[in-house]
Amino acid sequence: MSENKTLIQAFKETALKTNGHGNRDAGVLKEAFDGIDSDMESDMYGSGKVIEAFQEKMAKLLGKESAVFFPSGTMAQQIALRIWCDEKGLNRAAYHPLSHLEIHEEDGIKELHGIETVLLAEKDRVISLEDIQNMKQEAAVVLLELPQREIGGQLPDFETLQAISAYCKEHGIKLHLDGARLLEVLPFYRKTAAEICTLFDSVYLSLYKGIGGIAGAILAGSEAFIKDSKVWKRRHGGDLISLYPYIVSADYYYGLRADNDKMEQYYHGAKELAEHYNICEKVSTLPQVPVSNMFHVHYEVSKEDLEPILVEIYENTGVGLSGYLRETGDTSCYYEVSIGDLYETIPEEKLKEVFNTLNEKLKAI
Amino acid sequence: MSENKTLIQAFKETALKTNGHGNRDAGVLKEAFDGIDSDMESDMYGSGKVIEAFQEKMAKLLGKESAVFFPSGTMAQQIALRIWCDEKGLNRAAYHPLSHLEIHEEDGIKELHGIETVLLAEKDRVISLEDIQNMKQEAAVVLLELPQREIGGQLPDFETLQAISAYCKEHGIKLHLDGARLLEVLPFYRKTAAEICTLFDSVYLSLYKGIGGIAGAILAGSEAFIKDSKVWKRRHGGDLISLYPYIVSADYYYGLRADNDKMEQYYHGAKELAEHYNICEKVSTLPQVPVSNMFHVHYEVSKEDLEPILVEIYENTGVGLSGYLRETGDTSCYYEVSIGDLYETIPEEKLKEVFNTLNEKLKAI
Repeated sequence: MSENKTLIQAFKETALKTNGHGNRDAGVLKEAFDGIDSDMESDMYGSGKVIEAFQEKMAKLLGKESAVFFPSGTMAQQIALRIWCDEKGLNRAAYHPLSHLEIHEEDGIKELHGIETVLLAEKDRVISLEDIQNMKQEAAVVLLELPQREIGGQLPDFETLQAISAYCKEHGIKLHLDGARLLEVLPFYRKTAAEICTLFDSVYLSLYKGIGGIAGAILAGSEAFIKDSKVWKRRHGGDLISLYPYIVSADYYYGLRADNDKMEQYYHGAKELAEHYNICEKVSTLPQVPVSNMFHVHYEVSKEDLEPILVEIYENTGVGLSGYLRETGDTSCYYEVSIGDLYETIPEEKLKEVFNTLNEKLKAI
Repeated sequence: MSENKTLIQAFKETALKTNGHGNRDAGVLKEAFDGIDSDMESDMYGSGKVIEAFQEKMAKLLGKESAVFFPSGTMAQQIALRIWCDEKGLNRAAYHPLSHLEIHEEDGIKELHGIETVLLAEKDRVISLEDIQNMKQEAAVVLLELPQREIGGQLPDFETLQAISAYCKEHGIKLHLDGARLLEVLPFYRKTAAEICTLFDSVYLSLYKGIGGIAGAILAGSEAFIKDSKVWKRRHGGDLISLYPYIVSADYYYGLRADNDKMEQYYHGAKELAEHYNICEKVSTLPQVPVSNMFHVHYEVSKEDLEPILVEIYENTGVGLSGYLRETGDTSCYYEVSIGDLYETIPEEKLKEVFNTLNEKLKAI
C-alpha cells in the first residue's frame, strides 16, 4: 500500500536512482581495498608512503606547494581560517551566511578558535566583489565556497573570482577556497583545478562528494601554511595513527572518477535532469541551468501533497528521485540532487515516463 | 654486514618479535572486513546501526549510561575536560606532568579550549591522594592515566583509586580516566572494567592499543555528558560522515582479544619477559614487575654501544626486541615494550638464547 510507505522506504526500494554513486556501504571500502596488498604499510601519524604519496598528488592537482590529508573538512577549514587570523593578528573571518562553518559545525570556529565572523551577501545569492569591498568590519580572511551548496550549487563567474582575488591580495586579506565540490565545477569554468586554486591562498577539497570516497579532506597551500596546519591537526585530534582506510579509498575513487572525465558526465547529467524537472508544472530547479553536478528542486506544493505522489512514482517506475522533502513553507518544499554514477544507468524512456507522470500528477493538484 | 644495518632495518627483518600484534598494515583492515557483507550500511554522522551497536556494547563494558566513538583519544579527552570545566565555570584541569595531553598534543587543551593545567606529582611516579589534596590551585577535573604510560605503565593500587575518587566526589572535583590501556590493567587489579570505571565520572578507552584496532577511541559517561560530547565532537571536526572502517575493525579485534582473555596472557607475558631482561647485567625494567602488558627497558649502556649488540642478536637469532633506542643520558637509553599476540609465538629456547647472548655481550662492555 503506497499510502503506508514512507518516502525514504519507497526511495530505498527503487532499483534506479537519479542521485549519487550508490549506497554508502561496506562495499565501497571493500572495492577500494580489493587491489591493495595486505602488506601495504599503514601511515603513522601523518608519515609513510600511503599518505605522503597521496598528499603530493593532491598538491600537484591543486597547484599548491604542499597538501595534507584531514579526516574532515570541518577540521581542515577551521584550521585554515585560524592560521590566517593568527598571521594577521585579527580574529575575524568573512564568509557566506549559509557557509558550512556557519550552519553545520555547532559554531566550532567561534567556540574553539574564538574567531568572529562577518557574513557576506544575502542568503539567496553568491558573494560578489562589492560584498567584500563593502565589508562592515575588517577580516583577516575571506572564504568562498565553490559551488555555494546551500543555494543549489551556484557559482560566480570566473572574472568575478579573479577580481575578488586581486582585491584581497591588494588589501592584505587572505582568500580561502571551500572547494568541497571543486572538481565538480571544473567543467563549467573550463579550467583546471590549479587554474582556479591559484586565485586562493589556501584550498580545501572534499574526498567523498563527487569523488565518492568514504570520508576525508585535503587542505593545500604553501609549505609554511601546511606545516602550521599539521600542528593544528594534532591539536584538534585529527592526527590519527592510521588514516589509510580513507586515503586508499579516496585515491581509488579519485582514479576512477576524477581522472576519467566523470565530472564532465555528471555536469551534463545535471543539466539534462534539470530540464526534465523544469518541464513540470509547479517545479523549478535552482539554478535553472546547473553549473555543476548539483542543483535543488523546488516544488510549489506542500510536503504532504507531494509525498504520496513521489511514493507512487517510485513504486510504479522503480526510479527514485529523493529520499526526503524539506519544507520551505506551507505549500512549498525542496530537495537536493547530486549527480553521480547512478544517473546514466537510467534509460531515457524511464526518465520520460517518470517526469510525464510527475507533471500530470502535479497538474492535477 | 651487521655494522651497516640500522637497528630499525634489522628489527623489521626479524621473523619473531617480542612486542605487539604484528605489522600495522592493510592486512589488519582486510582481516576485520573479511566477514562483513558488502551491503552493511555505513554510519552517517554518528547515526546508524554499526556505530550505535558498538557504542552500546562499550557503554555496557565500562558500566556507563552512554558512550560515543571518537576518531582519536586526543579529541575525546580534550572534550571531556572541556565539558567538566564548563560545568564548574573553572577553566583548570589537573593531570600528571607526563600525561598525553601535556606532551603529545601540541597543547591543544590550552590552545583550543583555553584550559590551564595543574601538574600533579613528580614525573617519575604516579599520582597519589596527597597530590590531589595538596593541589596548589583549584581544578574542575582531575585526569588519572591507568597505567601511566610514560613511566613504564605504573599503577596506583586500587585502594588509592577508591580514596582519590571519594575525595574528588566530596570536594566537587570531577574525575576523568585516561584508560587508553584500561583493559590491559584489569588482570592486575582483578576487577572488571565497570568496577574501575565506577570510580570515574568519565572514561576514555583506546581501540588500537591492546585491542589492536586501526584507530579510534571511546568516551563514556552519563547521558548528559555524552550528549554534550557529541556537540564538541562536531565542533572539533570529528563527526565524520563515516567512521565504520575504524568501528568494524575495533569491534572485530575487541572480540578477538578482549573477549578472549588475551589481556591476561599479555600481562603474564610481560612479567615473564621482564624477568628475562632483569637477569641481564646493566639492564632493568620499569616497573621491575609489570602491572600490565607493558614496561620500559632501561640500559646503563650508551645508545652507540648497545645498537650493534642488538643488531647482531636480531640477525643471529631472528628475534627482534625493539626498533629504536631512546637516549636518557650519555651512557643510558631505553625502549618501551608492549606485549601482544606476537610474544607467545617465540619458543622458550629462543628467548633463553637471546637473553643469554645479550647478558654476555653487556658483561663484556
